[in-house]
Amino acid sequence: MSSPTLVVLDLAGIFVFAISGGLVAVRKELDVFGVLVLAGATGLGGGFLRDVLIDATPPAALADWRYLMVPVAAGLLTFWFHPAVGRVERQVSVFDAFGLALFCVTGALKALELGLGPVPSALMGMVTGIGGGMLRDVLTGRVPVVFRGELYATPALAGAAIAVAGAELDLPVLVSTLLGGGVCLVWRLLAMWRQWQAPLPSGPASV
Amino acid sequence: MSSPTLVVLDLAGIFVFAISGGLVAVRKELDVFGVLVLAGATGLGGGFLRDVLIDATPPAALADWRYLMVPVAAGLLTFWFHPAVGRVERQVSVFDAFGLALFCVTGALKALELGLGPVPSALMGMVTGIGGGMLRDVLTGRVPVVFRGELYATPALAGAAIAVAGAELDLPVLVSTLLGGGVCLVWRLLAMWRQWQAPLPSGPASV
Amino acid sequence: MSSPTLVVLDLAGIFVFAISGGLVAVRKELDVFGVLVLAGATGLGGGFLRDVLIDATPPAALADWRYLMVPVAAGLLTFWFHPAVGRVERQVSVFDAFGLALFCVTGALKALELGLGPVPSALMGMVTGIGGGMLRDVLTGRVPVVFRGELYATPALAGAAIAVAGAELDLPVLVSTLLGGGVCLVWRLLAMWRQWQAPLPSGPASV
Repeated sequence: MSSPTLVVLDLAGIFVFAISGGLVAVRKELDVFGVLVLAGATGLGGGFLRDVLIDATPPAALADWRYLMVPVAAGLLTFWFHPAVGRVERQVSVFDAFGLALFCVTGALKALELGLGPVPSALMGMVTGIGGGMLRDVLTGRVPVVFRGELYATPALAGAAIAVAGAELDLPVLVSTLLGGGVCLVWRLLAMWRQWQAPLPSGPASV
Repeated sequence: MSSPTLVVLDLAGIFVFAISGGLVAVRKELDVFGVLVLAGATGLGGGFLRDVLIDATPPAALADWRYLMVPVAAGLLTFWFHPAVGRVERQVSVFDAFGLALFCVTGALKALELGLGPVPSALMGMVTGIGGGMLRDVLTGRVPVVFRGELYATPALAGAAIAVAGAELDLPVLVSTLLGGGVCLVWRLLAMWRQWQAPLPSGPASV
Repeated sequence: MSSPTLVVLDLAGIFVFAISGGLVAVRKELDVFGVLVLAGATGLGGGFLRDVLIDATPPAALADWRYLMVPVAAGLLTFWFHPAVGRVERQVSVFDAFGLALFCVTGALKALELGLGPVPSALMGMVTGIGGGMLRDVLTGRVPVVFRGELYATPALAGAAIAVAGAELDLPVLVSTLLGGGVCLVWRLLAMWRQWQAPLPSGPASV
């Protein structure tokens, strides 16, 4: 799981997640430090959350400086060029879907490797994919957008579950990764394009 | 500590906590995924927080699929039948008091078993009882209600402290549990009935 | 690193951080429990966050009751005497700068001792210094003030980086501590005095 290709994909996923964190920080008029921290929390937060829960601490990102430099670069880029970055946000969110697809699969496989069962492993895959965005929103005082709005978590859970099923069936890692990541990616891109939403509670809420 | 009775009580406590999380999510108009995550965070969050702090990771709930299914069931129930669930909220909060009484005791005893001292163990018991509700409120952008309003944390701390004292005096586990849990339960129910509140700061706050 | 002097300094840092948490709680009109929890979270939160991330759990504060009593004392003091405490807030924030200087250095050195590399160790030092205040703000529904406003995190990162560099160069611990802590302290005090701010994004944010 540490082939050069995977590391590059992982760093790319962190980069696009970090960009989304930096853009939220700029819109909240945070200072350069706030932009960097939000970029870092969004890019690395999902992996941190998983590693703390499954006791794989210290998180990989703290043991490898490249993982720390990527959100710093994304944060500075967003800080300096936010009007330009903001204009390509739609395109960035396509890369974000790649990041989600990748993280949900690698997160689930890492949890499996550490001895968790299939159901918790699929859940940890989803947490890896969506945790960074949740942390970004909690740190900026927003209800996490993943709780409301476009379908985001469900594709991540589906991708993670498929990757876990593949591993349980002893499929080669590459096949599980491509199957799980592919389903997550296509589902997420379709949700963006067609503006699919998860169901809302029906009727008025009794207060 | 893993007799069938205790497991059933534990699952029941998680269930009622998860219902309270689901109701908050419905009122915030979150989608079905938001309802499920808030149900899970409220039902399992206190135990997760304790396990991460005392290094009992991965948390028990991640190693036993029954612990994951209970908040899913509570979340779906709340999502589909929220008007009916909302109407019996007053009754649910009586069960919530049972959950609090149980969690503060089992949380404290687990921390003791893992070698923490009496004062930190009592504190971890309180954290187990109130942590889920705090997480629910942080995730929905509210100041945790446990910080303001009806007496909630103090009964949990008292119950946890009594359970710890019982364990230190070598009372049988069942006796400590009943004493600690009983005090927490009665105190909490009285607080609900008489609307007892924790003291507020006196005078105007200097801004 | 556990000489009586360092323990006293550590407890003093926790005390002033806890005061700042208690004052925020009083202004949010939280009850006495909310004041105590916010005092505890602000005083101990940075160290907890570091210890959970670098797997030094259970955190030291849970293994030593003195570390728990200090925020309780600070919280009760703030709760009872908040008008007086509020009036000396400016003076308290000078002590807060001492706390920041101390925590960033001890946090970084602890991470180094546990085997993290220099870059992550400096980051963990900064997290130890600013984590408590971030937790305080998230728990009260505010965007962390460290993200916006007076320079606070940068001096902490600088102090932590200098302490790490000193340790890597095999300087005596006392020298690294004084150098790193001194730079952080002077920089922070100057920032308070001259109202230095971290740079803000230029131009309007594209929404």
